[in-house]
Amino acid sequence: MDNLIDGRRIAATIHSETVARVGQLKDSGVTPGLVFIRVGEDPASRVYVGMKERKCHDLGIHSSTLVLENDTSQSHLLGVLEEYNQDPRVHGILVQAPLPRHMDETVVYATVNPSKDVDGFHPVNVGKLMLHQPGGFLPCTPAGVHELLIRTDCPLEGAEVVVLGRGNIVGKPMASMLMQKSKNANATVTLCHSRSRNIAEHCRRADVIIAALGVPEFVTEDMIKPGAVVIDVGVNRISDPGSKTGSRLVGDIDFHAVQPKAGAITPNPGGVGPMTIAMLMRNTVIAAEQQTLDITGPDA
Amino acid sequence: MDNLIDGRRIAATIHSETVARVGQLKDSGVTPGLVFIRVGEDPASRVYVGMKERKCHDLGIHSSTLVLENDTSQSHLLGVLEEYNQDPRVHGILVQAPLPRHMDETVVYATVNPSKDVDGFHPVNVGKLMLHQPGGFLPCTPAGVHELLIRTDCPLEGAEVVVLGRGNIVGKPMASMLMQKSKNANATVTLCHSRSRNIAEHCRRADVIIAALGVPEFVTEDMIKPGAVVIDVGVNRISDPGSKTGSRLVGDIDFHAVQPKAGAITPNPGGVGPMTIAMLMRNTVIAAEQQTLDITGPDA
Repeated sequence: MDNLIDGRRIAATIHSETVARVGQLKDSGVTPGLVFIRVGEDPASRVYVGMKERKCHDLGIHSSTLVLENDTSQSHLLGVLEEYNQDPRVHGILVQAPLPRHMDETVVYATVNPSKDVDGFHPVNVGKLMLHQPGGFLPCTPAGVHELLIRTDCPLEGAEVVVLGRGNIVGKPMASMLMQKSKNANATVTLCHSRSRNIAEHCRRADVIIAALGVPEFVTEDMIKPGAVVIDVGVNRISDPGSKTGSRLVGDIDFHAVQPKAGAITPNPGGVGPMTIAMLMRNTVIAAEQQTLDITGPDA
Repeated sequence: MDNLIDGRRIAATIHSETVARVGQLKDSGVTPGLVFIRVGEDPASRVYVGMKERKCHDLGIHSSTLVLENDTSQSHLLGVLEEYNQDPRVHGILVQAPLPRHMDETVVYATVNPSKDVDGFHPVNVGKLMLHQPGGFLPCTPAGVHELLIRTDCPLEGAEVVVLGRGNIVGKPMASMLMQKSKNANATVTLCHSRSRNIAEHCRRADVIIAALGVPEFVTEDMIKPGAVVIDVGVNRISDPGSKTGSRLVGDIDFHAVQPKAGAITPNPGGVGPMTIAMLMRNTVIAAEQQTLDITGPDA
């Protein structure tokens, strides 16, 4: 069935747009620069940062990674951030989650200069998203979902959208993006979560379902309207005695059952994941453009 | 029928709580101070600021009002704001909307020091609201509606809430407050607006309807579920040839038809309006407390 939303292909298109913008920056003497900060040796964080570093390399974005010991003090990390905030070669700063327990994520993310906050986690960028003000950075995963919907011509104007999950990284910003008074939004959004009653009923009336709950295969075939667009943001590890490692990754959607009924659906992997990195790369180039307007502007 | 939510009574209770906090501040040598800035002579703005000034006086909050000419330059206004941002006697700054057309509201509101932004309009305060982080200021009208719901024991956990209107001052922050993972929230929120289809259907399944659309008497009796809680934020002037002035104010709810079917309903006036001022006064005292912790803290 050809109702798959090919995140890899769409991400590749966005990457080619980003490469063109990197070229323009370099023609003006600017190499976009992104710094990754990892604290400790969380295995998943190593993998994620490694993937992002390789993509920077592929696109011509300069990147470097600072790895701090797990017992680094928060004040040391904040001092490091202040230095990068001041460094004109660094246009984007990404502090990879999770942080050690002795650190306060809220304080750490709020210390990143909002104009270098390519993750879109700083309160001022979240506020600009909600107020629909320009000039902020959109968080990468929901921005990537939005691009998937736009670039597959999914009708959003007046559409019934159900967002499952109210996390700060996906659910809440996703809802905020799609409800705005804007050409590519104007949806009627319902946000469901762990305390919601009647989630299945909400889903059954939805034109678009975006699942970011973190519950393996939560959305089943009986919960969707025929023809609905279904986006799977979930990444859940479940045990699988038959596999080599004893476990495997599944999304929040029961993909095989839902696909035949859906109008369009993201595979997982190969749907939302590649878009998150594409948005991070684009945000980094936007940051470099904004910070070097004096150089790249028409009066240079 | 005694299903009226008495905003005047609940606001009076909050004011008495505020007076107690003002007393504690004064015992520590701090008089909370609020500055109003009006630009031009918009008649409604004069009335609103006048009401707020009188309430400050009643509660022991020091207030002053700066009136600028309609043709004041934006840069002059920003300079004035910077001075108040630095003035330790001023704990709260309120720039009364609307501003003249030659000014950019976004720039003006973002210039107010977030720690003095008692209106809750600065992006960093909006971001903290959405991220559910402490220490920010909540916008007064939706915070007032939330207090009405809490203080009338309206069940919110798992409740179906429909917010009508997606303005930055009421609709969007209202939705954000009620969807949070929190004892007095945890609602399933749907935000409807001018591009929504099926608004009546959404309303008919709602346990709580909050109308902030600005459409006179939009919510009719057939749109509500028996027993629903109905909150009217609207203030609309409609023509009324029979009245002395030729016009009268109505809300977004067809009050007389809806009241018999509602479980609880705000009168209008006398519902949400008094709560907005109560929240402004409370925000001002919170601002004074936060800015003078050195004086009022346990180590003083």
